Amino acid sequence: MPKTLEFYFDFGSPAAYLAHTQLPQIAAETQATVVYQPMLLGGVFQATGNRPPIAVPSKAAYVFTDFARFAKRHRVPLVLNPHFPIVTTTLMRIAIGLKDRQDPLFPAYMDAVYRAIWVEGHNLNDPAVVAEVLQRAGFDAAALLALGQDPAVKESLKAATDAAVARGVFGAPTTFVGGEMFWGQDRLDFVREALLA
Amino acid sequence: MPKTLEFYFDFGSPAAYLAHTQLPQIAAETQATVVYQPMLLGGVFQATGNRPPIAVPSKAAYVFTDFARFAKRHRVPLVLNPHFPIVTTTLMRIAIGLKDRQDPLFPAYMDAVYRAIWVEGHNLNDPAVVAEVLQRAGFDAAALLALGQDPAVKESLKAATDAAVARGVFGAPTTFVGGEMFWGQDRLDFVREALLA
Repeated sequence: MPKTLEFYFDFGSPAAYLAHTQLPQIAAETQATVVYQPMLLGGVFQATGNRPPIAVPSKAAYVFTDFARFAKRHRVPLVLNPHFPIVTTTLMRIAIGLKDRQDPLFPAYMDAVYRAIWVEGHNLNDPAVVAEVLQRAGFDAAALLALGQDPAVKESLKAATDAAVARGVFGAPTTFVGGEMFWGQDRLDFVREALLA
Repeated sequence: MPKTLEFYFDFGSPAAYLAHTQLPQIAAETQATVVYQPMLLGGVFQATGNRPPIAVPSKAAYVFTDFARFAKRHRVPLVLNPHFPIVTTTLMRIAIGLKDRQDPLFPAYMDAVYRAIWVEGHNLNDPAVVAEVLQRAGFDAAALLALGQDPAVKESLKAATDAAVARGVFGAPTTFVGGEMFWGQDRLDFVREALLA
């Protein structure tokens, strides 16, 4: 019976981006259904006491080298966004707003935002740049930004983040296959095995 | 030309143990020379501001599941030591003491300590247990414990830890191939590639 891969993510995480690029192939190989679970990584860190790698200077110096190795191996583009870290609250609200209303634009929106941050290196901390990026990708930027301001959408992202934490999530990306949890872009081979088991 | 793999470790890290089990095969495959670099992980954490995974409760709940997956894949034994964390200061001092005097017992000592902690689950926080474990493994426990009390050996471990931090080490295990740094048991495939490049 085909299984489900639940993928908890935040656009601000380069590891989530790298994993995101691999999901279509994994889904194709395993016939799994991918369920994208937007969450706010900053909220996860706050709730769990975890910190981003960049909180430790020597770790910060290393992790992008490490991400670049993964990108090279899997032949996916990756730039070290010069505006990192990106505050993704609005971007993640729009994501969960699209997901909640089962909007068919949800996948294309995710791809566009990841690309803007981790391939093109845009400064999505600047709302004007966000609007421009969305518009250029073919979206109605004003409508998406309005969606991100909807109180129900804001509440949904908060609830989703709390639910992720309650499930044991402490970082991004986090993947679940049934009750099994996998943290990191570097555990997708274990995810593949779990889906085929 | 054969390359050198420098392996920075502390017995207290299950990730270092797991990587340790893989080094003979990697060395054989790549004709690399392995240089074991004892360091005190607690000192590395203190100097870098890094923290062990168990500092975050939900991460602590996850990491042993993750280590168990690695152990299963590579068919190596691993137990969650019930006395974890083990304070390894004396054990690491003995390690660097043996290394510094080019004692041929150094490899067997490393294997014996890793096994006592991560296969047999002994409480090496208890000096009496340390002595018993070393004696049973065929060592002169009293002589090794005396070596661990040698002021020059204590200083050597401190200097080695400082040097590791100066080189960019923030966790264990950390492997260098030339100027390239790799953190974790889960980067040994990249290490292998670097050795064969």
